[in-house]
Amino acid sequence: MLKIVSIVIRVRDLAAQTRFWSDALDYVPRDPPEDDWVVLRPRDAHAPCIALDAHGSERVLPPRIHLDIYAEDQASEIRRLTALGAREVPWDRRPADADYVIMEDPEGNRFCVVDRPGWPGWRDARTPTTSRRW
Amino acid sequence: MLKIVSIVIRVRDLAAQTRFWSDALDYVPRDPPEDDWVVLRPRDAHAPCIALDAHGSERVLPPRIHLDIYAEDQASEIRRLTALGAREVPWDRRPADADYVIMEDPEGNRFCVVDRPGWPGWRDARTPTTSRRW
Repeated sequence: MLKIVSIVIRVRDLAAQTRFWSDALDYVPRDPPEDDWVVLRPRDAHAPCIALDAHGSERVLPPRIHLDIYAEDQASEIRRLTALGAREVPWDRRPADADYVIMEDPEGNRFCVVDRPGWPGWRDARTPTTSRRW
Repeated sequence: MLKIVSIVIRVRDLAAQTRFWSDALDYVPRDPPEDDWVVLRPRDAHAPCIALDAHGSERVLPPRIHLDIYAEDQASEIRRLTALGAREVPWDRRPADADYVIMEDPEGNRFCVVDRPGWPGWRDARTPTTSRRW
């Protein structure tokens, strides 16, 4: 049996990227952080971990892999993420009916913030869990 | 509220990559596949989706983002993934006590298969869920 547990992002500034992703997703360290590695986990068990690996790599656009992050309130989350150091990526071919906004973290890693106010998963996220998964 | 829902991978051969990732993770299409896009979901609600986007991008090594995939039986999963078209990546600086093996999917996207026979998350994965998350 296999399970995707972490998405690993290579970083230059481990402390700064730890702050950004912890604040962005309301994540906490899963284990004591190491000098060059930290795994951040959600407070519940219903989302994957983000691991940060302090062995940087070159950024290439477009990225081969990116995250789709659902938002219950897209506009307010974009404002919040921008205040944390993310930025919106202008895109002149954006479809008029697109439900996502492309953003970059402080080191330029792109992700999409997808507008999903009625997503059933929000209910799970609000349900306290006794799972020991992480 | 924000949740990581999908990891999006750009692909050249959408049909082949759909087969590989569906078989590798025991995933199924979440919605009817489109010509250039498919979202694959786990059969339970305890793992993120994989989305495949048929707008390829250049592969660069080392990758900035990769997946850490936990295995209950690492050796047998590596054999199974190899039969599906993945390959192990030789790495001459591999630590002797490393609990992970680096692999590539058929288009060269790297991921780690991490040996976690006793991981508590396996119990969740075996528990049928009534969640409507996906």
